[in-house]
Amino acid sequence: MLRFMKHPSGAFQSIVGRLARQVEWGDCDPAGIIFYPTYFRWMDAATWAFLEGVGYSAKRMRAEQLAMPLVSAQCEFLAPAEQGERCEVRSRIARFGGKSFVVSHEIVRGDGAALAQGTETRVWGRFSGGPGTPIKGQAISDEIKALFRVR
Amino acid sequence: MLRFMKHPSGAFQSIVGRLARQVEWGDCDPAGIIFYPTYFRWMDAATWAFLEGVGYSAKRMRAEQLAMPLVSAQCEFLAPAEQGERCEVRSRIARFGGKSFVVSHEIVRGDGAALAQGTETRVWGRFSGGPGTPIKGQAISDEIKALFRVR
Amino acid sequence: MLRFMKHPSGAFQSIVGRLARQVEWGDCDPAGIIFYPTYFRWMDAATWAFLEGVGYSAKRMRAEQLAMPLVSAQCEFLAPAEQGERCEVRSRIARFGGKSFVVSHEIVRGDGAALAQGTETRVWGRFSGGPGTPIKGQAISDEIKALFRVR
Amino acid sequence: MLRFMKHPSGAFQSIVGRLARQVEWGDCDPAGIIFYPTYFRWMDAATWAFLEGVGYSAKRMRAEQLAMPLVSAQCEFLAPAEQGERCEVRSRIARFGGKSFVVSHEIVRGDGAALAQGTETRVWGRFSGGPGTPIKGQAISDEIKALFRVR
Repeated sequence: MLRFMKHPSGAFQSIVGRLARQVEWGDCDPAGIIFYPTYFRWMDAATWAFLEGVGYSAKRMRAEQLAMPLVSAQCEFLAPAEQGERCEVRSRIARFGGKSFVVSHEIVRGDGAALAQGTETRVWGRFSGGPGTPIKGQAISDEIKALFRVR
Repeated sequence: MLRFMKHPSGAFQSIVGRLARQVEWGDCDPAGIIFYPTYFRWMDAATWAFLEGVGYSAKRMRAEQLAMPLVSAQCEFLAPAEQGERCEVRSRIARFGGKSFVVSHEIVRGDGAALAQGTETRVWGRFSGGPGTPIKGQAISDEIKALFRVR
Repeated sequence: MLRFMKHPSGAFQSIVGRLARQVEWGDCDPAGIIFYPTYFRWMDAATWAFLEGVGYSAKRMRAEQLAMPLVSAQCEFLAPAEQGERCEVRSRIARFGGKSFVVSHEIVRGDGAALAQGTETRVWGRFSGGPGTPIKGQAISDEIKALFRVR
Repeated sequence: MLRFMKHPSGAFQSIVGRLARQVEWGDCDPAGIIFYPTYFRWMDAATWAFLEGVGYSAKRMRAEQLAMPLVSAQCEFLAPAEQGERCEVRSRIARFGGKSFVVSHEIVRGDGAALAQGTETRVWGRFSGGPGTPIKGQAISDEIKALFRVR
């Protein structure tokens, strides 16, 4: 479900994670189109899949007590999506800060139409004492940054 | 949001927990009625509220590393519900086993119409080493059972 | 995401629909395992995918104003699932009634472990006047039944 | 669940809608804190409740075939929230455009701590032919604006 391609340009030359989604009955609302928090669910899932693609699977994140809590999130909704439509969430690292990073996401329908575009700003952190304990921000190493850079 | 009344009859004479819900836009599907997993979300929330009402708040559950994982759940859907309708989830202990218990739930609309009725079978358990670690079943004490019995 | 295989035995010799799922961060709860209503979301999605596989896509369902509201649903939870685990929902028609049908679902982890098994009882219906209007049960034709029968 | 108070200042002198929420088990993720799309679910529910408070209930919205699709949404997450915490979503009209409007939301915990603050930009629209049909933007009348203005 996750492949990579080169990103044409940008401050950080990020690889692109791709996550396939199909709009489901339960993702939609009485207007017959996607309920907007669904896009944020997809963006969250896409970020986790993006990390899995570079070696940071959920299992490894748990084992190393890593977490990536949100600072902020935003999304623009460009076109409605109906149940059954096949989409792809395309994720890139837009920026790396010292302990934080920004992931940009494009949600594109099978026919190429852009449905939504959003960003998540997250902290790279570690649970101080296992899940449920406070999360402390960690410096993002050059090794981690390199995993997301186009080569 | 939680009050109690006497239960007319039954094997275990349970008090009744009451949780108010209003059907939300995001709870509904393109048919314009409640998306059925929503009822299970409500039943889960109602069980937690029921426990809070007898002294076992989420905070206490966390502090004592208690959990109540599901063995099974079922629900019958009796009438559709539309956005905006005000409902009540009425919860009772249907049965106490050694380490498990059954919660029955009735979902009733403001005008008294029954919308759904379901049950959850749960284990009373404790995390062996904090959240994320395996849960071990615990004997349900007479003190706990007494909290739910009509006096 | 949907392939078919023969079903060994049973009253109705149903083909099997298969829907791939990966347990997501947002599918899980503070115990670090899947939040149980997620399984019902998956079962709902699996039924829609099962229908799409035999020619009844969401688009066609909308065009023909077809719906399949729930009568009841139940699920047994056999083993916990953690974020990142890859699963498959295997769906079969357990029974066809006059206007209703029962879909059975097995949720199996990548290593073959059974995680959950459930059933949905649904009515085959039609909106009387477009989405949001009451749904009327329709006789399930032999043509429709044949689509799900092992040949 | 919805009361009003005066807003100290701002371009549009908006009344304030208030929606009570308790963080539920199913709203949280394996980190033991609220899963961020939950805040967007709450914001959506708060906007609907805000409208209900001024006379535009879900029932009326359906009867008049009104809708309010999203243009964009964003949220800053200021502090984590755990299961059981009682919160309030405080909603104001930040701005009225010709056919669009911006709702700002503050999510505040019972002890007064700010948990999150976000905005939704929405179109005031009407289904061209019932739910499931395209939504057309409508001019927001002075009568509607007046419903939200502090008097």
